[in-house]
Amino acid sequence: MSPSSSGSARKIAPATGKLGVLTVGLGAVSSTLIAGVELAKRGMAAPIGSLAQMGTIRLGKRTENRSPLIKDFVPLARLEDIEWGAWDPFPDDAYVAAQRAGVLEGPRHIEAISDTLRAIRPMKAAFDREYVKNINADNTIGTISKRAMLNAIREDIHRFRDEKKVDRMVMIWCASTEKFIEPGPAHRDLASFEKAIDANDPTIAPSMLYAYAAILEGIPFANGAPNLAVDTPVLRDLATQKGVAISGKDFKTGQTMVKTVIAPMLKARMLGLSGWYSTNILGNRDGEVLDDPENFKTKEESKLGVLEHILQPEKYPELYGNVFHKVRINYYPPRGDNKEGWDNIDIFGWLGYPMQIKVDFLCRDSILAAPDLVLFSDLAQRAGLGGIQEWLSFYYKSPQVAEGLYPEHDLFIQLTKLKNTLRWMMGEEQITHLGREYYDEV
Amino acid sequence: MSPSSSGSARKIAPATGKLGVLTVGLGAVSSTLIAGVELAKRGMAAPIGSLAQMGTIRLGKRTENRSPLIKDFVPLARLEDIEWGAWDPFPDDAYVAAQRAGVLEGPRHIEAISDTLRAIRPMKAAFDREYVKNINADNTIGTISKRAMLNAIREDIHRFRDEKKVDRMVMIWCASTEKFIEPGPAHRDLASFEKAIDANDPTIAPSMLYAYAAILEGIPFANGAPNLAVDTPVLRDLATQKGVAISGKDFKTGQTMVKTVIAPMLKARMLGLSGWYSTNILGNRDGEVLDDPENFKTKEESKLGVLEHILQPEKYPELYGNVFHKVRINYYPPRGDNKEGWDNIDIFGWLGYPMQIKVDFLCRDSILAAPDLVLFSDLAQRAGLGGIQEWLSFYYKSPQVAEGLYPEHDLFIQLTKLKNTLRWMMGEEQITHLGREYYDEV
Amino acid sequence: MSPSSSGSARKIAPATGKLGVLTVGLGAVSSTLIAGVELAKRGMAAPIGSLAQMGTIRLGKRTENRSPLIKDFVPLARLEDIEWGAWDPFPDDAYVAAQRAGVLEGPRHIEAISDTLRAIRPMKAAFDREYVKNINADNTIGTISKRAMLNAIREDIHRFRDEKKVDRMVMIWCASTEKFIEPGPAHRDLASFEKAIDANDPTIAPSMLYAYAAILEGIPFANGAPNLAVDTPVLRDLATQKGVAISGKDFKTGQTMVKTVIAPMLKARMLGLSGWYSTNILGNRDGEVLDDPENFKTKEESKLGVLEHILQPEKYPELYGNVFHKVRINYYPPRGDNKEGWDNIDIFGWLGYPMQIKVDFLCRDSILAAPDLVLFSDLAQRAGLGGIQEWLSFYYKSPQVAEGLYPEHDLFIQLTKLKNTLRWMMGEEQITHLGREYYDEV
Amino acid sequence: MSPSSSGSARKIAPATGKLGVLTVGLGAVSSTLIAGVELAKRGMAAPIGSLAQMGTIRLGKRTENRSPLIKDFVPLARLEDIEWGAWDPFPDDAYVAAQRAGVLEGPRHIEAISDTLRAIRPMKAAFDREYVKNINADNTIGTISKRAMLNAIREDIHRFRDEKKVDRMVMIWCASTEKFIEPGPAHRDLASFEKAIDANDPTIAPSMLYAYAAILEGIPFANGAPNLAVDTPVLRDLATQKGVAISGKDFKTGQTMVKTVIAPMLKARMLGLSGWYSTNILGNRDGEVLDDPENFKTKEESKLGVLEHILQPEKYPELYGNVFHKVRINYYPPRGDNKEGWDNIDIFGWLGYPMQIKVDFLCRDSILAAPDLVLFSDLAQRAGLGGIQEWLSFYYKSPQVAEGLYPEHDLFIQLTKLKNTLRWMMGEEQITHLGREYYDEV
Repeated sequence: MSPSSSGSARKIAPATGKLGVLTVGLGAVSSTLIAGVELAKRGMAAPIGSLAQMGTIRLGKRTENRSPLIKDFVPLARLEDIEWGAWDPFPDDAYVAAQRAGVLEGPRHIEAISDTLRAIRPMKAAFDREYVKNINADNTIGTISKRAMLNAIREDIHRFRDEKKVDRMVMIWCASTEKFIEPGPAHRDLASFEKAIDANDPTIAPSMLYAYAAILEGIPFANGAPNLAVDTPVLRDLATQKGVAISGKDFKTGQTMVKTVIAPMLKARMLGLSGWYSTNILGNRDGEVLDDPENFKTKEESKLGVLEHILQPEKYPELYGNVFHKVRINYYPPRGDNKEGWDNIDIFGWLGYPMQIKVDFLCRDSILAAPDLVLFSDLAQRAGLGGIQEWLSFYYKSPQVAEGLYPEHDLFIQLTKLKNTLRWMMGEEQITHLGREYYDEV
Repeated sequence: MSPSSSGSARKIAPATGKLGVLTVGLGAVSSTLIAGVELAKRGMAAPIGSLAQMGTIRLGKRTENRSPLIKDFVPLARLEDIEWGAWDPFPDDAYVAAQRAGVLEGPRHIEAISDTLRAIRPMKAAFDREYVKNINADNTIGTISKRAMLNAIREDIHRFRDEKKVDRMVMIWCASTEKFIEPGPAHRDLASFEKAIDANDPTIAPSMLYAYAAILEGIPFANGAPNLAVDTPVLRDLATQKGVAISGKDFKTGQTMVKTVIAPMLKARMLGLSGWYSTNILGNRDGEVLDDPENFKTKEESKLGVLEHILQPEKYPELYGNVFHKVRINYYPPRGDNKEGWDNIDIFGWLGYPMQIKVDFLCRDSILAAPDLVLFSDLAQRAGLGGIQEWLSFYYKSPQVAEGLYPEHDLFIQLTKLKNTLRWMMGEEQITHLGREYYDEV
Repeated sequence: MSPSSSGSARKIAPATGKLGVLTVGLGAVSSTLIAGVELAKRGMAAPIGSLAQMGTIRLGKRTENRSPLIKDFVPLARLEDIEWGAWDPFPDDAYVAAQRAGVLEGPRHIEAISDTLRAIRPMKAAFDREYVKNINADNTIGTISKRAMLNAIREDIHRFRDEKKVDRMVMIWCASTEKFIEPGPAHRDLASFEKAIDANDPTIAPSMLYAYAAILEGIPFANGAPNLAVDTPVLRDLATQKGVAISGKDFKTGQTMVKTVIAPMLKARMLGLSGWYSTNILGNRDGEVLDDPENFKTKEESKLGVLEHILQPEKYPELYGNVFHKVRINYYPPRGDNKEGWDNIDIFGWLGYPMQIKVDFLCRDSILAAPDLVLFSDLAQRAGLGGIQEWLSFYYKSPQVAEGLYPEHDLFIQLTKLKNTLRWMMGEEQITHLGREYYDEV
Repeated sequence: MSPSSSGSARKIAPATGKLGVLTVGLGAVSSTLIAGVELAKRGMAAPIGSLAQMGTIRLGKRTENRSPLIKDFVPLARLEDIEWGAWDPFPDDAYVAAQRAGVLEGPRHIEAISDTLRAIRPMKAAFDREYVKNINADNTIGTISKRAMLNAIREDIHRFRDEKKVDRMVMIWCASTEKFIEPGPAHRDLASFEKAIDANDPTIAPSMLYAYAAILEGIPFANGAPNLAVDTPVLRDLATQKGVAISGKDFKTGQTMVKTVIAPMLKARMLGLSGWYSTNILGNRDGEVLDDPENFKTKEESKLGVLEHILQPEKYPELYGNVFHKVRINYYPPRGDNKEGWDNIDIFGWLGYPMQIKVDFLCRDSILAAPDLVLFSDLAQRAGLGGIQEWLSFYYKSPQVAEGLYPEHDLFIQLTKLKNTLRWMMGEEQITHLGREYYDEV
């Protein structure tokens, strides 16, 4: 054992056999993820944007020069072992979905793996237009009872497991943002939840049925959208109890990712903030769905929460007690999947003098396409860490945390948490950046 | 002692008596700093932008809710105890300097403390136009020998100490960027350095004489410009030997501050970088000095180094092996002291698809006006921590580090280092953000 | 007569006596206008932004070097002869209004003329909250019948004329945007209009009553907001019949001004346009009023029309047949009166390749504060040009034009029209920029 | 004849036979131009960006609805009749050049016409590295005497004419910016010029030899770069005398095009200007050449002149008497041919209050690829209009004008000039935008 190891490593089951990845939604995000992983498997592209695949982790002192790749340090599943399954209300296979999404260059990144993509055909979705008005599609199991939907999802899972002969699974929500729902009585405990399902209670959204099915089947669940899904007391408790890894809501990409580094910068330097105006233009199906005010509200809540938690206005009323924060999303078809976020940030410094920062991000949703949550959720599960994985906060606009805790939104605190968790899993010393040893007198 | 304290606190001498602050240069930065501190003393303004004055520090677990103000946690000098001294080649007192700088609103922030400002008159500067061509001024001790300059500086220090009856001092370089000089034979050891002074060696710049004088007098030295000053083997060794706190070069403000949070964001997410173009327009004396290519070179080196250290191209050749990084500064009088930095950042994500981030920062130099380096350098000295203070990297474009170490440029690693150092000084537990205790099974 | 004069000058009554300027609204715009004119009168500020005051006009050939100031070329009223009157639902005088607006620097631009400003007290407004929900104020004549409102406005005009002993008047709407109303049966002819007034028809807005009163009293009317006001068949006809000058709706400032030069540039070069997204943040009372969707709709229509008329999609379907144009206004208090407009423009060039232009305008409403419409409307009236003044299109987002004509929105066509109209008035030759005379063979 | 025609049309020789287009340089610009024209010939792409091909021209009153396409109004050469010839110091044919330039999408816009492109092979260039240091290439006629260069160019022209059997020709400079040369004694008259050629005078640059050869052969010459070329007294006079059409220097595209609409906007509204900072990043060969200070100077002069002529500081000293104008070009390889221009514009309005406009233009050189100058220069020649074509100012950063005249840089004055010239050629009435006829009383 390395001289700087401080503790004993956690026992982690090996990543043997195949890992089934079930995506809810087979649109731009999923097809980009799938194509990228398949290209990476064949050595035709580097998995850029994947901390799990390309990132290194420093171990020990700076002078030890120990920085292995994360994937060589912790026992992750190999990309080669991934098998894909998907649900979608549109019947397009992954090949057609990728073509329509317009994210990838056809000849280089779609045609090259066309057979694989064509073979991924979506199962009929447990979809209800009541929750996503702007989508009109019919590869669905119809408007049957919520109980029947739940059962259908579970049967799909069983069939997928048997057909693909997978050893373990992860479910990942890559579908639309549902209309806004607040946690209510139906989400309190298992009895109420079960009763609400039977009563076709409108506060039971499809995303909750998918999440519930996943937990019942012992499958880690990662939620790419701001829908409640697994983020209710009942499912949090159930996941903990059953040892199923869950982690958060709404993948943190473009604008919010930048927000979670600029806001910590302001706070680090104790610069005040008077206003933050964020606007987005995007022209893909996401933009179309979010053009509906009910669905936008769900997204808005997720996007707005970030600043308050980072800036802690209750601790710094002079600096952050009066922040005007506004987030806008506009459906703007000319740019397709290439969204753009523009932020204007009004800050103040020494003696209150105002300054302004403007950030224009010509982004792509593809940056979130990395398979990290799949790989890390599977790792957590094998390491016996059920329930909430706060160390995966790094990937979410709305991370889940233990009751009574505030979430950490600062991207760098999240990264520290992630890496120190990996070190802890493997029995390596925590990094604190204190570094007195380089200076202390003999 | 708190239950979460992990070790014993360091012994720190109390901050009794007056603290003399000697600024080299009495221009926009110093006059803004002085005015701000004087206004804060009188309760007429909050010390916004000062981590030392307004920041809090979390102690123990998140659930303990212990987050005192830093200034209540560690024994800093009080602003009330600060006495000012300054050198400048222009004879303007702090009142006139503040007026000319055009940074502060006259009636509210200058007139209100005019008597104090008028009383701060610059001592004659040890100035040599050979090192700063675009400045033509005559409140200097003339072009005498370098040895005579050194002696004059030391005499000024003695006179200041006696007149103001200060207990301790800190020297802070707020003057111009000197022309580019690389560390050479003259800076290797004390013998060569002394010999070079006697020989009027051109590689001995005035900033080195000020730094040398400070160390000989046992005074911590902080360097706001990218000049070598204290950053040579001879002075690093001497400072360590004499127990004098030194820390880095070139205050990190506007554009570079943003760079040191955006670059870590890219790396955190393993997003590639192909190019980064940074341009600045500023119209103050700084801009005028940097319009000279020899002086700009000094600044450029300081600004360019940042990215390489953060991104570690040697570890991530696919992502950062081919970065085109360009930094430009343009003298642009219409905006005066209100500089603007514009950055274009070309990145790439999943499968190599390009994205762009543009940052426009309408900044002011005043954001760096905080007295933190004065207060923390004095603290370090009283805590018996001589030599390089790597924990103050947070404030510099070019932090100093122990030989054999790479500098940390990531703003958030720097902040962690700073805060964990304060915790260590006071015998509090290190924060690692691991946080297993909130989740672990009983 | 000049050798290059081509026709006989129009007969224009001289600008004798005083010119009364009645502003509907005494808020940010009016108080800035008034203060600026009063400061200019006293030689304390240049009337920057006023074509009428500072602009020159080229006469004859380029080689003749005849470019007098416009105010020396046509017989405009002198600023010295202006007398102010105003209505406002808030009781603040012009001094208080200017203070609250936060546009002007107090000591230099308000205190210096405080007596004059204090003496301008608003008459009670003919205000109806039904049309502007977000304003709650009580310096009004109450919710009396529309007929009584009309009469009250006319009586105010009479009283103002008699008290101030003005020779001529101009009325200018500087008040809020009213809720959206489409021209309907009530606005067709005088009989219907009169009947609708008596019936308190909700499609008769206060702005129409002010406009009607102005025309009945023979006073030119200029409309700074997008409200219908004078832009209905009945009032257009009446103005023509009575020889009263009217001109358009909604002053063209910040973002739309830029739009009317960028769009003509695209068209001049035959560059295609696929999308134009415009967003605004502003924090003054205007922003507050426009936060209400009904009022925003009025503004939106005015802002959207511009592109279509300039680009003529029916003529250029390949270039402009499929433009996605979106305009957003967001109430954003941190910036007060200093609004900011951000535009993203997606264009395409040779072979259809896409390009992008982004414009960020840190603007102030003060740029529209110029008295040009007052001076030119008065001139038109004295020149016997009643009815629609298409040559004043230059100042409006929605210029008025003769029936059967499309409006010209291109700022440069508008400027040519304005200047050639002045040349025509004075019997000078039209400028065509043909300029063959400089090249033609003898 | 139309009722609104005001004069008799000019006699224009018909566009019979083939039109040879000789490009000096076969790089990004020329290959894009050639490919675009060839695709347009085949109906595979619309000639977007070409006023000559896609623009319409209004004739008569607005109510007449007469707006033919320009190409149907004036007798232009047909694209089908164009034959290509080129010189370049690199031996790549147009196919290879287009591939290397990276402007066009290979499969759709290069492969589709690969045979035609491959057949266009560059003649050896009359190239001298003394004038363009950063290019190292050898498809040249060597460093022979200037006289021999001139003769070689003329022989190439003869050979091209005979081989391609062209009826008329146009020469267009699409090659690099040469180092800065000021017009001097050698450029005064034919005798001095001839003598300087014989003496290999360094102020005789290759671009001048090409221009001289063109004029001697009776071929219109259009200059895409800021090199003097034809813009000297001797060649201006010779062109006039020989009836050869010449027009200006340096194609006006991206940033300068925007400048020539924003600056006129400011002047139209009498808004003051205190500073204009323009920076560019581009990564093609152009960027590489301009990285050399001597070549950049040539470009800089061309870019700087624009503002002064538009704003006329001598007429408006309060508004434009103190403008700080700075233009920067940076070689930035990551973006290739896709250049980006960022402008910061500091303006002031009513009472001198400052405002800012920022323009970010993600541009492509392809927008200048239109064949308009070829077609219009040929038209001018056939219409018997020799010498300077001021009506083509529209296309240039530095238009040529008759002695004693100032150039017009305002894009909209330039467009008016162009269109009124076309109307004049065809005997149609000038458009003045006066439009009194729509309003005048009977």
